[in-house]
Amino acid sequence: MSDTAAVTAEALLEHWQGHRRLTRRLIEAYPEDQLFTYSIGGMRTFGELVLELLTMAAPMARGVVTGDWTTSWDREQKPKEEILRMWDQSTEELNTLWPRIPAERFQEELVAFGQYPGRASDLILYVIDNEIHHRGQGYVYLRSLGVEPPPFYER
Amino acid sequence: MSDTAAVTAEALLEHWQGHRRLTRRLIEAYPEDQLFTYSIGGMRTFGELVLELLTMAAPMARGVVTGDWTTSWDREQKPKEEILRMWDQSTEELNTLWPRIPAERFQEELVAFGQYPGRASDLILYVIDNEIHHRGQGYVYLRSLGVEPPPFYER
Repeated sequence: MSDTAAVTAEALLEHWQGHRRLTRRLIEAYPEDQLFTYSIGGMRTFGELVLELLTMAAPMARGVVTGDWTTSWDREQKPKEEILRMWDQSTEELNTLWPRIPAERFQEELVAFGQYPGRASDLILYVIDNEIHHRGQGYVYLRSLGVEPPPFYER
Repeated sequence: MSDTAAVTAEALLEHWQGHRRLTRRLIEAYPEDQLFTYSIGGMRTFGELVLELLTMAAPMARGVVTGDWTTSWDREQKPKEEILRMWDQSTEELNTLWPRIPAERFQEELVAFGQYPGRASDLILYVIDNEIHHRGQGYVYLRSLGVEPPPFYER
């Protein structure tokens, strides 16, 4: 049981990219003038959350492949179009990096970004979960702005 | 690459139960008098969302193991204590069912609950993602109620 493949490498990338397509639709649906201004309960704006996601996704895959954990932590406000462009670039980068992850790497203990220890597969899942979590926040922001978000089940 | 185990069966259960522990902490932190009354943007209350999660988690694992896809869809409002009790029962049930999933099953195409087709691993991930998504909603509700939610990274 212990080494049964519950989720294959191929399926995990597909799964992740499906989530990324949904998050992209949410960014597209988000009113540009609210992207870096609107929030609820003192939480971060959706724009800030998306910038966080951008500094985690491709940099995580790059770190898992190369051991290079530098990331830009770019938190500068940007027009939506620029954010979507960065999103698409990340998507491409993920697709390119993914097949370069050695099979055994997924089960290895790494220290992501020099400070987060964990099994590589858990570190990757964390980045995906963090996207789902913050996007869930984005759903509430959007609804409270009177905008119908894209359906969760569509990937 | 295609059949590389990115996430093992053991790690996936651990991962799921980690999320379930966090969701449990959120339920505990939620003001009981707001559980089935408070919402934002016309969305469902956190209590309703948690009841949905309960009808998906153990029933999904049961279906994957046995092919029995019945679930109660119990949406009756309940005291928080009763919900927590149901949560703990699901946790136990998941732990009992999980080792009974045959290794090859994760990659098989199933039709969950008689209506959702997909690879078993994707169906399971969907249930986990749905929990993270709705819990993210719960974080916003809690914050907007002035309650500090448990940290996302703690499992």
